[in-house]
This record gives sequence, structure tokens and C-alpha cells, in this order.
Amino acid sequence: MQPAAIALGVRLRVLAESAAASAAQVVPDAEIGNHRDAAAVTAFAQACDVLTVTHGHGSVALFETLAAAGTVVRPSPATLVLAQDEVAMARRLGASRSDDEPVPMLLAGECPGAGRELTALVARSPSGQAVAWPVVETVRADGVCWETGEACREVIAPAPRIGPELAAQATSTALRVAGELGLAGVLAVGMVEATGRAGSDGASCLVVNNLVTGPHESGHWTIDGAVTSQFEQHLRAVLDLPLGDPRPRAPWTVTVSVPGGAYPDLYRSFLHVMARDPGVKVHLYGTAVEPGRVVGHVTVCGDGLDDVRARARHAADFITGLIDE
Amino acid sequence: MQPAAIALGVRLRVLAESAAASAAQVVPDAEIGNHRDAAAVTAFAQACDVLTVTHGHGSVALFETLAAAGTVVRPSPATLVLAQDEVAMARRLGASRSDDEPVPMLLAGECPGAGRELTALVARSPSGQAVAWPVVETVRADGVCWETGEACREVIAPAPRIGPELAAQATSTALRVAGELGLAGVLAVGMVEATGRAGSDGASCLVVNNLVTGPHESGHWTIDGAVTSQFEQHLRAVLDLPLGDPRPRAPWTVTVSVPGGAYPDLYRSFLHVMARDPGVKVHLYGTAVEPGRVVGHVTVCGDGLDDVRARARHAADFITGLIDE
Repeated sequence: MQPAAIALGVRLRVLAESAAASAAQVVPDAEIGNHRDAAAVTAFAQACDVLTVTHGHGSVALFETLAAAGTVVRPSPATLVLAQDEVAMARRLGASRSDDEPVPMLLAGECPGAGRELTALVARSPSGQAVAWPVVETVRADGVCWETGEACREVIAPAPRIGPELAAQATSTALRVAGELGLAGVLAVGMVEATGRAGSDGASCLVVNNLVTGPHESGHWTIDGAVTSQFEQHLRAVLDLPLGDPRPRAPWTVTVSVPGGAYPDLYRSFLHVMARDPGVKVHLYGTAVEPGRVVGHVTVCGDGLDDVRARARHAADFITGLIDE
Repeated sequence: MQPAAIALGVRLRVLAESAAASAAQVVPDAEIGNHRDAAAVTAFAQACDVLTVTHGHGSVALFETLAAAGTVVRPSPATLVLAQDEVAMARRLGASRSDDEPVPMLLAGECPGAGRELTALVARSPSGQAVAWPVVETVRADGVCWETGEACREVIAPAPRIGPELAAQATSTALRVAGELGLAGVLAVGMVEATGRAGSDGASCLVVNNLVTGPHESGHWTIDGAVTSQFEQHLRAVLDLPLGDPRPRAPWTVTVSVPGGAYPDLYRSFLHVMARDPGVKVHLYGTAVEPGRVVGHVTVCGDGLDDVRARARHAADFITGLIDE
């Protein structure tokens, strides 16, 4: 988030678990402390205009205490609670659904013919302004490298072979979820394109299967591929600034995660990738290389999907060490 | 340069004149010291793999001493000396010019019919790899705001109405200058499109009128408008990494400088610009606002030059306070 903050003139402060954490390496005067330590977080929050959290970090109960004492927490603790309770969210969306809306939010068990994964990334500000990036397809790899939680293998923006109707359904559902959550910030709404729903005529439907608040791996393509990145947008949203243009910069953008692999030091393979393809954008997170842990990502933008995807996959596989030519 | 360093996984260290300097605000653990203080610079350099300098900062004699003692200084002190001596450079380029090359470097006085200003931005690595961005037109404003040294009013990329032949001449001249300088890093070669040279048939010719080593205002458009920004390229070049793709991301990119103006606090006008045009990229430098001092720039990319330029000018003029609607 620091590159976006620099351009916007926003001063970022960070509470990081150690001086070796990625964020502490790039933000001046990082505070070192545990994000579940009430005293540390409370002291840190007192010097911030707005406190925001990345997914899975921190205690919602602690944020509730801080918010009650006057700290501006965005997304709000209420949003965080709701986003984590899929059953409650599904009921709530079902109840507020209009009769002609073709996508009710379903729970995964209700729709057996699960197909590919799509993600609708949206942002919403406290004023209620909301924007949506193009719906993307997220492709997970098989095997051990990709068992690390929510790491995406590959993101294709926009999702290929998606009809304008299904894309509009995914977007409107994600915007409705953001509104229901009272969201301030960025939200990734993970969906599965599914068939075989009871009572349907076999047409595709969308099943919402997870919600992630804050910038998310499925949105890293926006750094190089969209006019406004998810990081800039998250900052604008939590600060209640007007939101930026989410449109793509190129017909196709593919981002592939780079997990730690064969090489403890990525320097030589990184060098090779830079030399082989000057158009690849490599992003390294400064984290220690461990097999399976995502240490960066690569992004390629261009006019032809096959070419863009092949270049991005090659670069990622080469840096990881899966291939050596 | 910090956003580019973060993505590349390069650890940037900075020697800044004060904690309030732009660089010190965004790079962790900035050293505070005067860039002409030999002891401070020498101590700082010992903890760096490569020392690079921004234009006009530091003493070349000091860099020569450091380089002689083993510090890697890029661009080299020899390059810095040569780039500052326009007469020597003109002679040297004249002597090495091939007979069929249509642009000899001239000194400004030799070509009276001076027209618009063009800038050819190139990068070269110690290995000799070199790349060139599209040639741009730089338009300076009249009046007091623009008397601040080398501040550009407006940069249009690529330069409008430039024939492919003249563009190729400008690029090849800039690449030859970079080679003659033994450059490591980014170089902006400022030129004037001129007519009326003695002995010519009235055709346009290019007069090189200044050389600037390191990232330069005329290259700020590359942050949003090119696959590889001048900052990322400068880092790649001084570290002798393979250079990145310099191609533009959009048919037209216009960048307009924002000088300090009527408003001591830019927040409200910044907010207005963000709300009015979500596609404008605003870059603020975190410097104190003083009339005439450049405090940021705005960039707009798009398909139509008139639209892109009008939006960029409006945003810059609004933030400065020249207009209020």
C-alpha cells in the first residue's frame, strides 16, 4: 500500500510484528508490536486518523473497543463480523433480494455443479460511493505449493468467455454485498460459476463462496493493469476520498503468484526473467523464501490473452524454479 | 523512486537534508545529512552497494574521491563532469558523428530559428544495454510560477506532429550521447526543433540544448504512462539489471506540473479534482507549499490528445488555484 500512499501524499503508519515484515521494510518508523496486543494496538491507534486492517489480522473485539472509544476503524468492526459469518450474510442477502434478480447468494452446498472461480472486486466509501473492477477468473494450481490458505495461482482480468449478463450479475451482487456490509474499503467477493441448482433450467448461476475485506491477492493485477489499483482505492475509500477509475489499462492482464520454491535466493532467476521479457512486471514482497509461501507475483498486460498468460506463467515458474529454460 | 524500489525488492537508503524532505518521509531509516559534507556522504556510502545521485545534488569532486576508494558511483563522476560541459560534449559528438547522420549536436547559438522543445529520455546500463522512451514535447508556461529552474509546465507523450524520421533522429542522438557519456542510469536529452541553420535548406533540425542525468521532470509521465517508469529504469540501470520495456501504455499521456499557488493547504482542491475526474493520477511530493515551487504533478492517459490534455491542465490549474470551477 506504500507506493499508493506516496503518490496520494498520504502518510502511512504501520504496526508490524517484526522489523523483518514486508511493511516494516518500506514504511518509515514502523511500530513493532503484536496486532493482538490490546495495549500496543491502542497506543498505535492514538496516532492515526484512520485505522485499517488487512484480512485476518487483529481481533474484532479489540477493534470494537477502540471504535467505541472514538477511533475511526475502517472497515468497521460490524463489517468485519458480518463478512466472516457466511450463513448470516447469505440469509441477509436472500431476504433483501429483488424478485427479478437472477443471482441469490447461495451457500456452497446448495449448488453441486461447481465450475470455475470468479472474483468481483469492489470498493465502497463511507459516503456510499462505490466502484467495481472487471470480474476476474482465479485459477488455483494443484499440488502442495498452493495449499497456503487463500493464495491464488493465476488471475485473468477480465474473466475470459464471460457473457456481459453474467459479468453484470456478479458485479451487482458484489456491490449489493458491499452495501449490506456497510463497507468502507475494498472487498473481494469470491464466487463459483455453477450449474445444476435445484429448480433451475441448467443455466449458469453464481454462488458466492467467500468474502475478503481489504486488498486481496485476486486484485494484485490492478497495480499494473487498472487506472486505479486496489491499494490506492482502499486508501481513498477508508479516508472517504472520492474513488478512482477502476477501468483496465489493457485488453488483458494476467497475474501469477510466485511461491517460494527451489531457490532460497531468487536473484538469479529474477535476473533471467527481466532479461528474457522486459515487459513483465515483477513484484517481490521482501519476505523470506520458504517452499509454498507466496513471495511475490508477476503481471503481464497486453492485447492477446494466450500470449499474456504464457509470458506471465513462464516468468512465475522460472522465478520459483519449476522450470529452468 | 521508492515505489519502484519496493516492487523490485530493492532496499533503498537515502541521505536527506532534513527529516521533512520528501525522500525522508517515504524511505525507512533515512540518514539526515548534507550531501556536500564529505564525512557524512562517505559514512553513508559505506553501507550502500551502489551510490546514485539526483541531478544537481552533491559534489563531483567528492564522488571522484569515493569512486577512487572503491565506492560504486552511478552515473560515474566522469559522466557527471561530461554532462555538465556542453561545449566539450558538442565537440565530442561532432567528432564521432557519421557522415550520413542528419543531426549534429549544435550549441544553441548556432541555430537561430528555435521552435518547440523536445526531450528524448533514454537509459543505459553499465553492460551497455540501452532503451529509449518515445520522444516527448515539453511546454513551458510563461510567468513567475515557471521560473523555478528546470520545472516543466507540461509534457506530451509522444510529441504531437513529429515525423517518424525526426523522432528517430532525436532517439538515436540521445542514445549516442548516452554512449559517449558512458552513462549508467537515466538521461534526459533536451532538444529544440529548429530551422534556419546556416547551410541547411530550411528543413527542421534538432539542437541539443541540455543534458540531465537521473530521473527528470520531463519523464514523470512514465510513472503512469509507460510499462517501465524512469524510476524503475534508473534503479535497473545503476544496479546493472536488465532494462524494462519503455513502451507507452496508452496512445497519449499528458503530465502537468503543479506549482504551489493560492492555497497553502492543497487538500480541498485535491479532493475536488479527485471527485471531478476519477481517471486523473495526482502525485504529491509532500513538500511544503510555496508559490512557484513544484509540489506535485498530475497525469492523464487516454486515446484522444485534446481530451487528455484538457483534463490534465484543468486538474493542475485547479489544485494550484488558478481556476476554481
